[in-house]
Amino acid sequence: MKEKIEFWFDFGSTYSYPAVMRIPMLARRHEIEFVYKPFLLGSIFKKQGWNTSPFLLNLSKGKYMWRDLERICAEEEISFNKPSAFPRNGLLASRIVCSFENENWIDPFIRSVFRENFANDQDISSSLVIAQILRELNLQPDEIFLKAELLETKEKLKLQTERAFDCGIFGAPTFRIGNELFWGNDRLESAIKWSNKV
Amino acid sequence: MKEKIEFWFDFGSTYSYPAVMRIPMLARRHEIEFVYKPFLLGSIFKKQGWNTSPFLLNLSKGKYMWRDLERICAEEEISFNKPSAFPRNGLLASRIVCSFENENWIDPFIRSVFRENFANDQDISSSLVIAQILRELNLQPDEIFLKAELLETKEKLKLQTERAFDCGIFGAPTFRIGNELFWGNDRLESAIKWSNKV
Repeated sequence: MKEKIEFWFDFGSTYSYPAVMRIPMLARRHEIEFVYKPFLLGSIFKKQGWNTSPFLLNLSKGKYMWRDLERICAEEEISFNKPSAFPRNGLLASRIVCSFENENWIDPFIRSVFRENFANDQDISSSLVIAQILRELNLQPDEIFLKAELLETKEKLKLQTERAFDCGIFGAPTFRIGNELFWGNDRLESAIKWSNKV
Repeated sequence: MKEKIEFWFDFGSTYSYPAVMRIPMLARRHEIEFVYKPFLLGSIFKKQGWNTSPFLLNLSKGKYMWRDLERICAEEEISFNKPSAFPRNGLLASRIVCSFENENWIDPFIRSVFRENFANDQDISSSLVIAQILRELNLQPDEIFLKAELLETKEKLKLQTERAFDCGIFGAPTFRIGNELFWGNDRLESAIKWSNKV
């Protein structure tokens, strides 16, 4: 029995986008289960003394990242358009995942949110955009928002972010198998290989 | 005719190690020429406001990097032992490469310096260690040191570092083909693929 791979991500994280889009095909091909673990990357950056994304703090690195992401998405045939705002706040979407993680619509919901941000340039921090995504999945946004905004949901996401930090996670996406970490979309295949070994 | 790949590196850079060890085999297999471009990564970090390696500034990132490097070297069957000091100063070795870049012993010299640092835990900032490497290549260290310490060599390395920065290079290793950059050991194959396209 293969070990599950935890997929730690932030909805605003650029390299989480190709990773999340590649997961379904790779999960099927390798018969591996992925467990989605949203966390607040901004909180972890703050602990590192950064008040925003390193891609904004370092202009060369930011410029490189967008070009690299464009190349990766072209190579993987993933639709991509550079968002007009970066990083976008995935707080509401992350709370929804924390609150409904066992629902079968969570996987398509996650992918829709990423697609709206990185392919359709929609502001995923807006509840209107998230409501539209939920309606397209035949869900009632109002009920979902109510549960997502409960104190216990907010606490759950905070604790999950603390846990990410305690596990040594410093960026997104990070794949975790036992105590082994693999950071970056480019380590997805290494993580799968590792989960086959353990 | 395939375009040459510039390989921008710093002798203290951890991920430059597996990259430099993998280059000869890949260069032969794909019939691609690599041009070695040492530069001073520390100077570029300073422009970013960092006084040392990001792997020391961010403990989680540092811890991850050593584990990741260990896994990569094991996978690629590259001898690796975590150096007892990091980052080691590659100034003298970089000046030697700048000064003698067209000599046929430069390729094995570069690989020996990396091996001493990352496999044999030798202090490559020491002229004694570099002298020993040169002697093993049947060279006279004294003559080489003289030329490496000339003002024009020092200037050449400084200019090369400025050029790295101007090209948008922010880390090592970076592969460059025309204006296209590929950052990281894990992008070596992408760089080769790109050089086949252009």
